[in-house]
Amino acid sequence: MSLNSFGHVFRFTTWGESHGPALGAVVDGCPPGIPLTEADIQPFLDARRPGQSRFTTQRQEPDQVRILSGVFEGRTTGTPISLMIENVDQRSKDYGDVAKAYRPGHADYAYDAKYGFRDYRGGGRSSARETAARVAAGAVARKVLDGVAITGWVSEIGGDAIDPARFDAAEIGRNPFFCPDAEAAARWEKRVDEARKAGSSLGAVVECVATGVPAGWGAPLYAKLDAELAHAMMGINAVKGVEIGDGFAAARNTGEGNADPMRPKRPDEGNAGPAFLANHAGGVAGGISTGQPVVVRVAFKPTSSILTPMPTITREGAATELFTKGRHDPCVGIRGVPVVEAMMALVLADQKLLHRAQTGR
Amino acid sequence: MSLNSFGHVFRFTTWGESHGPALGAVVDGCPPGIPLTEADIQPFLDARRPGQSRFTTQRQEPDQVRILSGVFEGRTTGTPISLMIENVDQRSKDYGDVAKAYRPGHADYAYDAKYGFRDYRGGGRSSARETAARVAAGAVARKVLDGVAITGWVSEIGGDAIDPARFDAAEIGRNPFFCPDAEAAARWEKRVDEARKAGSSLGAVVECVATGVPAGWGAPLYAKLDAELAHAMMGINAVKGVEIGDGFAAARNTGEGNADPMRPKRPDEGNAGPAFLANHAGGVAGGISTGQPVVVRVAFKPTSSILTPMPTITREGAATELFTKGRHDPCVGIRGVPVVEAMMALVLADQKLLHRAQTGR
Amino acid sequence: MSLNSFGHVFRFTTWGESHGPALGAVVDGCPPGIPLTEADIQPFLDARRPGQSRFTTQRQEPDQVRILSGVFEGRTTGTPISLMIENVDQRSKDYGDVAKAYRPGHADYAYDAKYGFRDYRGGGRSSARETAARVAAGAVARKVLDGVAITGWVSEIGGDAIDPARFDAAEIGRNPFFCPDAEAAARWEKRVDEARKAGSSLGAVVECVATGVPAGWGAPLYAKLDAELAHAMMGINAVKGVEIGDGFAAARNTGEGNADPMRPKRPDEGNAGPAFLANHAGGVAGGISTGQPVVVRVAFKPTSSILTPMPTITREGAATELFTKGRHDPCVGIRGVPVVEAMMALVLADQKLLHRAQTGR
Amino acid sequence: MSLNSFGHVFRFTTWGESHGPALGAVVDGCPPGIPLTEADIQPFLDARRPGQSRFTTQRQEPDQVRILSGVFEGRTTGTPISLMIENVDQRSKDYGDVAKAYRPGHADYAYDAKYGFRDYRGGGRSSARETAARVAAGAVARKVLDGVAITGWVSEIGGDAIDPARFDAAEIGRNPFFCPDAEAAARWEKRVDEARKAGSSLGAVVECVATGVPAGWGAPLYAKLDAELAHAMMGINAVKGVEIGDGFAAARNTGEGNADPMRPKRPDEGNAGPAFLANHAGGVAGGISTGQPVVVRVAFKPTSSILTPMPTITREGAATELFTKGRHDPCVGIRGVPVVEAMMALVLADQKLLHRAQTGR
Repeated sequence: MSLNSFGHVFRFTTWGESHGPALGAVVDGCPPGIPLTEADIQPFLDARRPGQSRFTTQRQEPDQVRILSGVFEGRTTGTPISLMIENVDQRSKDYGDVAKAYRPGHADYAYDAKYGFRDYRGGGRSSARETAARVAAGAVARKVLDGVAITGWVSEIGGDAIDPARFDAAEIGRNPFFCPDAEAAARWEKRVDEARKAGSSLGAVVECVATGVPAGWGAPLYAKLDAELAHAMMGINAVKGVEIGDGFAAARNTGEGNADPMRPKRPDEGNAGPAFLANHAGGVAGGISTGQPVVVRVAFKPTSSILTPMPTITREGAATELFTKGRHDPCVGIRGVPVVEAMMALVLADQKLLHRAQTGR
Repeated sequence: MSLNSFGHVFRFTTWGESHGPALGAVVDGCPPGIPLTEADIQPFLDARRPGQSRFTTQRQEPDQVRILSGVFEGRTTGTPISLMIENVDQRSKDYGDVAKAYRPGHADYAYDAKYGFRDYRGGGRSSARETAARVAAGAVARKVLDGVAITGWVSEIGGDAIDPARFDAAEIGRNPFFCPDAEAAARWEKRVDEARKAGSSLGAVVECVATGVPAGWGAPLYAKLDAELAHAMMGINAVKGVEIGDGFAAARNTGEGNADPMRPKRPDEGNAGPAFLANHAGGVAGGISTGQPVVVRVAFKPTSSILTPMPTITREGAATELFTKGRHDPCVGIRGVPVVEAMMALVLADQKLLHRAQTGR
Repeated sequence: MSLNSFGHVFRFTTWGESHGPALGAVVDGCPPGIPLTEADIQPFLDARRPGQSRFTTQRQEPDQVRILSGVFEGRTTGTPISLMIENVDQRSKDYGDVAKAYRPGHADYAYDAKYGFRDYRGGGRSSARETAARVAAGAVARKVLDGVAITGWVSEIGGDAIDPARFDAAEIGRNPFFCPDAEAAARWEKRVDEARKAGSSLGAVVECVATGVPAGWGAPLYAKLDAELAHAMMGINAVKGVEIGDGFAAARNTGEGNADPMRPKRPDEGNAGPAFLANHAGGVAGGISTGQPVVVRVAFKPTSSILTPMPTITREGAATELFTKGRHDPCVGIRGVPVVEAMMALVLADQKLLHRAQTGR
Repeated sequence: MSLNSFGHVFRFTTWGESHGPALGAVVDGCPPGIPLTEADIQPFLDARRPGQSRFTTQRQEPDQVRILSGVFEGRTTGTPISLMIENVDQRSKDYGDVAKAYRPGHADYAYDAKYGFRDYRGGGRSSARETAARVAAGAVARKVLDGVAITGWVSEIGGDAIDPARFDAAEIGRNPFFCPDAEAAARWEKRVDEARKAGSSLGAVVECVATGVPAGWGAPLYAKLDAELAHAMMGINAVKGVEIGDGFAAARNTGEGNADPMRPKRPDEGNAGPAFLANHAGGVAGGISTGQPVVVRVAFKPTSSILTPMPTITREGAATELFTKGRHDPCVGIRGVPVVEAMMALVLADQKLLHRAQTGR
C-alpha cells in the first residue's frame, strides 16, 4: 500500500492517466502455473466499460487489455504480469476552464496543493479511468481464488433501495444498473434518466459478497481482512463509506441482537468448522475470516460533474464559477460494481497467500 | 501495514497479549529532536484506561508507560522509540470454558482456524487491551503533528444520537461517555446502566475531527488519506463501519446537494488556498487533504461479551452454550474515542512525512 | 524490495522477459515538477545497449524508451512514470535444447525448482535484458539527484586491473570497455577478443563513485546506505561480490591503517562538515553518508554461456551436455557499468527522499 | 527493510541503544505452533556475549533474554514475539570527549549530520550492542528452518587466513576465535593479543554456510536470495564487503573455470534435483537457491576504537584529537560470527515463507 502499489505478497501497481496514451497494471507475486489469457480478463473490463448505456458516460473506450509479460504458453510464470490498456477516446477538447480553475468536489485543488502542478486533462491520474487497471488486475486475482465466488450489485441509488426479499442474483446482469431487484431497476431507470437529463447526479450504495472464503484469512492486527477491505474500497474514486456485515446498523444494536451463534455442522454440511446462525459480522471476526460469506457495503457519492454552475476559485485565487460540459456519469456508483468486485478479489488473493506464508496452509 | 506494523515512513509495531507480562509499541521513523517524555503519553493512556467509571470494564490497569529507547536528554533521536506498558491485573481466573469452546462474536474460532492454536486468556492478542499500545504510539504521533488538533467524541449510543445543535467540545471531558451534548450524556447514563445491569451491551458511533491539516497530505492512489483512515479505523477492535465526511448520507444525495463550493479567502482568513462553503467531503478529495477539517465517523458494534447464554460449539465440534462471566465493557465504543484519536494521529503523522518525502514540503 | 519492486519512497517496479513483446519499469514516488523527456533517459540506454562493439552480444536492440504516464507538459506530475522498451530482435531460434535441459551456471534449474515451470526463451525473466528497465528507471533517479555525479568504470577484466595512477575519467567513454586507463583498455581488447574467439568468457570488476552526496543519507539500522547498495548491486545479473570503500582490503588492515581522520574545512572548502584525510570507509559510516564520495566495487562473474560443452541434466533427470550457441557477451561485466550506475542512482534517490521524510531536510 | 525492520513476511524490528535500559526485537510473522522458550535463544546470545575472553571487549553483559509475548504454553501463537534484553553494565563513564568531538571511523559525525543530534553514550543506536537483538531474533528464525544447518566461522584475521585443508568444524567451538583451523587459532591468539596490548585493532573475514536449503528459495528480481544476504550482511556493524560463493575470485576466472556442471543424482543421493560437480555460485543462481550449500563471506574492518590519537573535529568545527579509552574489541569480526549466522537464518526463514506464499510449497 505504498503510493501506487497495493497488497503484501500478491501485489499490483497501476499507472496511467485519463488522457495519456495508455494505462496499466503490473501484477507481482502471482503463483506460477495458472492458466491465463486476455480472455480471462476482458469480460470484467467489458462490464466496467463506459458508453454501454445512456446511464453511464458516453466516452467510448474498447478497453482492450494486452498481457505484456509474466505468461508463457498460456500459464503464469510467477514473474510480473504487465497488463496494458490503450486510451482511444481522449476526445480533443478545450480544457482551458479546468486548467485555470478548480472543479468543486474534484481532486483538482488537492492535486495542485500537493504537487504544485497537475495534469488537468480529464482529471489526469485522479480520473476513474484508472479503475480499469484495477479491474484487469482483479481478474488475475480471481484466478488465484479457486473456489471463491464474488458477486457485487447496486443496492441503492439516490436513497431508493432494493427490496431484499426480491433479491435475484440472475437479475444483476439483465439491467444496466447491476440491480438484483427488477422492480428497483425499473424505478432507477426513470430516476437516473431524470438526473441525467437535468445534468444532475446521484449517489449509490454497492454491496459485494464473497462466498467460499475459508476460515483463517486475514492477518491481525494491522493487516486484518476487514481493515484491508476498508482500505481497498475507500480508495475507489467517489467512495465515502464502507461497512463490513451490519456496519453502522450494528452500532445501533445490542449484544444479543448482533450475536452470530454457532452450532455443529450436520453431516450433510461437511464437518469442518461451525455452522453460524447469523452473519451480522459479515464473515470477519478479529480481522480473520470465519468461513461465512464476506460482506461489504460501499457508499458512492454523486459525481461532482454536474451542469449546475458552482462557485469556485481560479489557480490565481480569483472567484469564478464552473460547471461540467460534456460526458459524465449521472451515477458513478453503477460502474463501481466491477471495481468493488475487483478490489474484493485483490484483497482476498493477497490474504490467501499471506496466510499460506505464515501457516503453510 | 504488514501484520503487526502500520505506516509507511512513520511506522509503529505493536506486540503483547491481554494476559502476558506486558505489551508495547515500537515507533520507527520519528523525526529527531522532538521533546518527548512519558508525561506526553500518559494522559492519553489515562483517558483510555479501564475501570474509571461503572460504564467500562472493572479491570484495574494503571497503564503506566515506559520509554525504553529512542529518546536522549528529553528529545527523540530519530531511532526507534520503544514503549512498554506492564499488565498488572491479569486476574487469575478459570479460563476452562473459553479454552474449550468458542465465544460467539469473538475472534476465538477465527484464531483457532488460522493458527490452529490460541492464547485464550482474555482473548490473547485479539483483546482490546492492545489498543493501549496504539494510544501510546498515537501520543508520539501527535508530537509530530504540530498545529493539528484532533478531537473525538461519542455521537451515538445504541441508536440514541447527540443533537448537533447542542455540541459543546468542552462537555466531552465532563462525562464518562466522551459526549459533547450534556443532555445526551444524561440519557446515556441511564441507558448504559440498564445494559450493564442486564448483562447486555450497546453499540456506539465515534466521530473524530482533525483541524489544522494543510492541503496536500495523502498519497494517491493506494495510500490515499481516506483509504488509510478507513484501514486504521476498521482495524480497531469491534469496528464495523467507517465514513469520511458525509459517508453513506452522500450516497443518498445529489451532486448539487453534496457540493463543496469554494470562494477566495478574505484577507482576514489568510491568503493560501480557497475557503470552502461546505465540507461534505470531510476534508479529503482524490485521497488528498483539502485543508478543511478531516472528518471520520466510526461504528462500534456492541461487545459480544454478554450474560445471555449463546449457542456455540466446542473445539471438538460439540454443541454447547457460553456466556461471559465477570468484567466487561457494556459499551466498548466509549473507550474507543482515545483509540480513534490515536489512529487519526498515526495516519496523519505518517502522511505528513510521506508528503514531505516526495515534495520536500 | 518485494519481489519486483525496489525502494522505499522512490520506488520502481520492473516487468518483462527477454523474448516477450516488451519490458518496462514503473517509477513511483518521483517528486513532481522535474523536467523529464525520453531524451533524458535514452543516452543511458544507449550506453547499455548490446551490439555496439564486437565485445558484447550481437543482439540488436534499439532500446527506444517511451514514457507512457507521469509526465505532463514535460514535467513529472508526482504520479507513476511508466517506461516501456519494446523488444525487437527476439531472433526466432530453436530453444529445444534449453527447454529440455538446464544450462549450468544459469538460472534454468533454479527457476524450474521454484516455479515448476519457466519461460526458457533467452532466459525469460532471468535475462540480463531486464537491466534495460533498471537503466531507464535510473535515468529518472539521476534527475532527482541534483548535484550528485555518478561515474562507473571497469577496473579489472579477467584479473587484469587498471593502474590507478593512470586513471583518466575522460578515457572511460573512449573505449568499448568503460576503461579509465588507456593502456589497460588496449590489453583488454586483445584479452576479450581471445575469449570471444575461443567461445570463452571473462569476469570483471566494476567500480562506481558518487560525488556530491551530502552527509546524512541512509537510514539505520535496516535501510543503511551501504546495505541498500549491497542489495542493489548483488541483485544485478552475474554479480557475486560487493565492496564499500576498501571492502575486503579493510579486513586485512589495522585500525590505524584504516582510519579516516578529519580536520576542519578551510574557508575555500566551504564551512559545513569536516574535511576527511582518507576515505577507506567509501563515504559511509554507521550506514549513513559522510559527505565523502560513495565508493562501491562490484564483482561480475564470467558468463556461463560458453562454447565448451558442460555436463548437465535434462528436466527429466537424464545426463546430457550443453553449450551455448549463438550470441553472447564474452564479458558481461562491461555492460554492467551503466547498470551499476543506475542502481547507485536509484538507491541514492530513494535515500534522499527517505531522509527528507524523517528530517525535513 | 524499512528503517528498523527487516524481512518481508518473517519480519523483525529492533530497538534500543548501547546505554539505554534495554534493547529488544519484535519478531513478526512467525508460523504458529513452534516450540519456543528462552532456552532456545540464550545459547546464541551466550556465543555473542562480550567479556568471555581477553580477545573481546570486557563489558560484562549477561544478555539474558525474556520473551514478553507471542508464546503460549511453550509454543508460538503466530502473533508478535517480543524479545527483551536488559542492559546491565552501562558503566558510568565520562562521555565528555565523545559528546564534544567526532571519533574518526565511527558513526558519530554521520549521526549528527543526519539527525542534528545523537545519543553519544557508547555509540547509542550505532553500537554493535544492537546485534544482540539480531542474534535473539535469529534464534527464532532457526526454529522456522527445520532441516537447515547454519555454521559460521572466522576464516581470516588481519590477513592471516586459515588453511582450508585443515578445516575442522568441531574446532570452531574450541577456541575464542570461532576458528576451524587449530593452527591458525594458535597464530591468531598471538596476533590479536599483540593488537590488544598495542591498543590497535585487526580486521577479519567471516564465512558462513547454510546446508539443507532446498532449491527454490529467493524471489527474483528484487528480493533475490543473494541480494538479501548482501543487504543483511553489509548492514552488520563494521562490515565492508560481501561475497556469495567465489565472490571476487569469480571476477578473475573464466566461464570454464567458474562452471558448476551437473549430473543426475545417484539413487543413494535421493532423486530430487541434480548433483552439482562444483559450487562456485555459492548455492544461488538467478537469485534462487539451487539446493547446494549457501555460502557467504563477510569482511569486517578493524574497529576504529584504538589507542592511537587521531585528528578530528569538534561539533563546533575546531581541530582536536581523539583516542579510545577503556573497553573495546581488538577484533570485532570475532563476535561477528553469531551475528552473521543470525542474519543468514533471518534471511532464509523469510525467504522460506515468501516462497511458500507464492507457490504453496
